[in-house]
Amino acid sequence: MKKHMFLQKDSKDRRNLPIGIFDSGLGGLTVVKEVLNFLPHESVIYLGDTARLPYGNKSEDTVLRFTKEAISFFSSKDVKILLVACNTASSLALPKLDDDYNFPIYGVIDAGVEEASKVTRVNRVGVVGTKATIQSGIYEKKLRKSSSNMEVYSKACPLFVPLIEEGWMEDSIAYKVSEKYLKDFKKEKIDVLILGCTHYPLMKTVIKYAVGDNVALIDSARSFAKKIKEFLSEQNLSADTAQSNCEFYVTDEPRLFRERSSLFLEKDIDFVTKINLEDYK
Amino acid sequence: MKKHMFLQKDSKDRRNLPIGIFDSGLGGLTVVKEVLNFLPHESVIYLGDTARLPYGNKSEDTVLRFTKEAISFFSSKDVKILLVACNTASSLALPKLDDDYNFPIYGVIDAGVEEASKVTRVNRVGVVGTKATIQSGIYEKKLRKSSSNMEVYSKACPLFVPLIEEGWMEDSIAYKVSEKYLKDFKKEKIDVLILGCTHYPLMKTVIKYAVGDNVALIDSARSFAKKIKEFLSEQNLSADTAQSNCEFYVTDEPRLFRERSSLFLEKDIDFVTKINLEDYK
Repeated sequence: MKKHMFLQKDSKDRRNLPIGIFDSGLGGLTVVKEVLNFLPHESVIYLGDTARLPYGNKSEDTVLRFTKEAISFFSSKDVKILLVACNTASSLALPKLDDDYNFPIYGVIDAGVEEASKVTRVNRVGVVGTKATIQSGIYEKKLRKSSSNMEVYSKACPLFVPLIEEGWMEDSIAYKVSEKYLKDFKKEKIDVLILGCTHYPLMKTVIKYAVGDNVALIDSARSFAKKIKEFLSEQNLSADTAQSNCEFYVTDEPRLFRERSSLFLEKDIDFVTKINLEDYK
Repeated sequence: MKKHMFLQKDSKDRRNLPIGIFDSGLGGLTVVKEVLNFLPHESVIYLGDTARLPYGNKSEDTVLRFTKEAISFFSSKDVKILLVACNTASSLALPKLDDDYNFPIYGVIDAGVEEASKVTRVNRVGVVGTKATIQSGIYEKKLRKSSSNMEVYSKACPLFVPLIEEGWMEDSIAYKVSEKYLKDFKKEKIDVLILGCTHYPLMKTVIKYAVGDNVALIDSARSFAKKIKEFLSEQNLSADTAQSNCEFYVTDEPRLFRERSSLFLEKDIDFVTKINLEDYK
């Protein structure tokens, strides 16, 4: 978890600032859902870079550039903390940030790693994610750091997101794709599988079928929100107002985002603002 | 086919300028291949917007903005003609361009429409493409214009590109996906199917299996290159030098592009330059 230096002296005034949540697209709404669940008094500013998604098959340089633009956007909005919900941005961009920002920046990886380390009994953990996330090796590195005798097995599953976007999460094709990607995990006798992409929990049923009922699936959104709750409380940064507010920003057409958001957020979004992230260099 | 006004008075000097070819990513290399095949003396400047691909699930406004930036890039390079290889950009952006440029701009749609109209005997044509291309209705409109009693059946096939990118073009999963998308074309008794996305010819075998051997598949890249050859000749714009040269530009990591280019171009690319299209507003 990348935590940047930030000005803490005015924490009292910062308490009721919104939490920023950044994702390449819609998947990060699962983190919004969990944050609102664990922290109902918090306000949220969400940004989905829908014009340039997906990030999962792009290079580190490009994902870093996009993420820096997103951070500039949140700097202009004055948030008290920024959560990077996107696994690819958390894997590729956060380790490369060396600037100090006015708010701490937390990626989604550590929450999943910590929970997986707690849950596994045999120290054999699987990770699924985008090509870029898996190739970065960040989950392996962090899992191995968490326990010296941890065995980690990773697999990029680039067809999962398109299947979910097509609404075929439980189609027989999804079962076949899942079986093809995940069959080796059975041989490796993992007992925990980290779903290292915000979309994947939507394919839980099918993934569970492929890896077997005895494998616990870790959905990082939930553990991420729990960790952020602890952090805000420790830092005396929890909101102390009953009013909360959500603002949504995207880089492509708001209508497309609104139409599909309920899949992740499980409630309707009324108002979405389109911005051009390239203006935030 | 969108053809813009351009300065023709110096056509003699313009002959040996390169042909510009624009695509959202790698698929447009199939057009490069056909252009080099039909026009071996021509030089080519290729641009793939790999940092922001795919275009096929994005809005008209966004695709128009990206395409205008690409045109600005080609303006800086001085090309004699610009070919938009990307079906989505041709469908969504070209009809909205109202500026005059220093070179004519041709989209890929008309070449496919013309060939399909010639080939069909029963005036029942199918079209497959990205969500954005199919929703634009451009193929339907143009096919119906080509013949008053033309029946057109369209289907967006968003999983085809991810399947190709995964290298599963002939996997049993590709057969199942293709069957699911294309089964209705059999009922409609089409005799021609336009492959309205530069990637789809790579799934020809599987698509043919789903629609039946009696359906002719139209791969626009070839007919596009043939049409451009005629146009250049008519306009006295054909290159008259034996030397030809290809330059490749991308917006994401050149290495990723080089590694995967042979799938489409069927030859290796030595040198690729990375640019930031957002600098060409």
